[in-house]
Amino acid sequence: MATQDFIDTTASQADDSPFQTLEWRPASGEQPEALLLLDQLLLPHKIVMVVCPDYEAVGQAIKTMQIRGAPALGVAGAYGMALAARRSAAATPQALLAELEVAGKHLFATRPTAVNLGWAIKRSQELAGRLAAEGRSVSEIGDALLELARQIHADDIRINRQMGAFGEEVVPAEGNVLTHCNTGALATAGFGTALGVIRAAHEAGKKVHVWVDETRPYLQGARLTAWELQQLNIPYTLVTDNMAGHLMQRGKVQFVITGADRIAANGDSANKIGTYSLAVLANAHNIPFYIAAPLSTIDLAIPDGSFIPIEERSAAEVTAIAGVRVAPEGAPAYHPAFDVTPARLIAGIITERGIARPPFESSIRALFEVEEA
Amino acid sequence: MATQDFIDTTASQADDSPFQTLEWRPASGEQPEALLLLDQLLLPHKIVMVVCPDYEAVGQAIKTMQIRGAPALGVAGAYGMALAARRSAAATPQALLAELEVAGKHLFATRPTAVNLGWAIKRSQELAGRLAAEGRSVSEIGDALLELARQIHADDIRINRQMGAFGEEVVPAEGNVLTHCNTGALATAGFGTALGVIRAAHEAGKKVHVWVDETRPYLQGARLTAWELQQLNIPYTLVTDNMAGHLMQRGKVQFVITGADRIAANGDSANKIGTYSLAVLANAHNIPFYIAAPLSTIDLAIPDGSFIPIEERSAAEVTAIAGVRVAPEGAPAYHPAFDVTPARLIAGIITERGIARPPFESSIRALFEVEEA
Repeated sequence: MATQDFIDTTASQADDSPFQTLEWRPASGEQPEALLLLDQLLLPHKIVMVVCPDYEAVGQAIKTMQIRGAPALGVAGAYGMALAARRSAAATPQALLAELEVAGKHLFATRPTAVNLGWAIKRSQELAGRLAAEGRSVSEIGDALLELARQIHADDIRINRQMGAFGEEVVPAEGNVLTHCNTGALATAGFGTALGVIRAAHEAGKKVHVWVDETRPYLQGARLTAWELQQLNIPYTLVTDNMAGHLMQRGKVQFVITGADRIAANGDSANKIGTYSLAVLANAHNIPFYIAAPLSTIDLAIPDGSFIPIEERSAAEVTAIAGVRVAPEGAPAYHPAFDVTPARLIAGIITERGIARPPFESSIRALFEVEEA
Repeated sequence: MATQDFIDTTASQADDSPFQTLEWRPASGEQPEALLLLDQLLLPHKIVMVVCPDYEAVGQAIKTMQIRGAPALGVAGAYGMALAARRSAAATPQALLAELEVAGKHLFATRPTAVNLGWAIKRSQELAGRLAAEGRSVSEIGDALLELARQIHADDIRINRQMGAFGEEVVPAEGNVLTHCNTGALATAGFGTALGVIRAAHEAGKKVHVWVDETRPYLQGARLTAWELQQLNIPYTLVTDNMAGHLMQRGKVQFVITGADRIAANGDSANKIGTYSLAVLANAHNIPFYIAAPLSTIDLAIPDGSFIPIEERSAAEVTAIAGVRVAPEGAPAYHPAFDVTPARLIAGIITERGIARPPFESSIRALFEVEEA
């Protein structure tokens, strides 16, 4: 592959981002080509790019949570498959397909619940199979898989930027925006969803100050969102999750925006634990509460939020913080990972095709029809 | 003083409590008499009683936060003054009064914002002055100051038990109670306020399970309330502060109760940050929200909550948890220590003279008139 190709693609992915969650590094001198991943386990204290010269290294990074976030995992998986093909010594396309089968299984096993990861692996394998059937060489298939990974990468960033463009219009020209968890470039392949909307508003010249919920128990807000906003030079202040009501009561919040993990056909939205409390508080103070999420988050097969299961995670994440035990030995704790915000508390759902507004049954369906048209 | 006196008094203070926040230990063999304090800095990981054989040791324990909570500080201050008198080598009552002046200044300087501490020191000095004027000996004054300290200690526990007796009647016979911060024996001289009500309900045979808010940033819930409930064998589960809304939404909370730091004449109540959010959430889910606080917390000179200043504390307490830095270097953070819950969200204020109910202007005043009658 030509180095020029690489620079162009990267430039279009990177835009003016001060950091990259994932980055493809071409071979240079004795350095082999590799996928570079920003190590999210070390943030915000150390900024280290993990170098993954082969698919096993990508799998290791996924397994140890150095990279996280559904879209980012999909992109990492696709690059991992490309690396498997490009480092292969297979003599025939058929031998390569067998190797990609092994690589795909290996990668998927590192996070079997990640839908995007499985999807990207499958897309890579299908493309390789088709090209092999067309008589393309091992080397050509390797180039094509890299191109696919770059495409998936660029698509995610494009979708996020579209969300940002639609969303920034509803952000006040001046004021305080409260957000929860991490929905930025670190949670996606780049730019972000809810944090992308805030970023787009900032880039559009709006004078926003962000209240960052620390987001217990994982502290994604304190560790990741605060760091991203710092990199982007967007004014922010970190608060504990229980301060939101007080801030709203004192008129210090004009807009609330979060991401979503899963959205039902009626607009009910599952997101990081604590989101529902924020929505109730925003409602009680007449502050608009928005969700930003790509259409892929919306599951039309789920009629409402009662059909969304709430994953329960380890109590150890509540009784310890950043590895330090805080509760007494044997303290029972509860850790629902998500909660469900009913549609009636949501002012709008910002997607890459526009903003769905209540009643969501029809407005969400209309956005999907645009896609199908 | 007779050892028998000591045992009697301790027994009446201790009741069936599995631990003592403060405890007077008489001289025994070569051991000098001393005030023992449960070291709250080491909880919940180690249970250690700090031995204070003189007032300087009491002052040190207050200064280093080994003991905390307004009523507990008052009691510690009174015992400190008693120790100053009893260890004095003063030849005359007048010389003793001069020494008590020095000791009082020293003790008060360890926490100049603690109203109860100043009050207890002043009461001790006034008593000593009066007895000296009556011609009582140095030794008699020392005995009297110890008796006063025990009285202040016992009074606080009695008040808390009265609150418990009134309060337990409104706790559901069976169900889940959510509480915030630490309002137990550790925050008082014994038994507790809001946690005392929960304890009284448990002792009355009610089947309560307690959701304990961890209470960021200081984690009094995770560190202290969880520990107290464990000692009392009251079923509980630790949660992060942002889970309250989800629990209420799922019908898992039947009653919410917190303490208060300051209550205005109209019932508006200042309490640990996060309390207001809980009150709004309880209101949105039609769950009764109660405050438990002694009448001394109510300031009739303050017409409403807008007159209560909100103390702002160090941002370092938000950016670090249990000494571990979580946010990036230089991250700005905000730490209001309290928030104000408006009276309209409060179902009742439980005091040692009964429960004030809306409208609070009249019901609170009626409780004070009972006292004056």
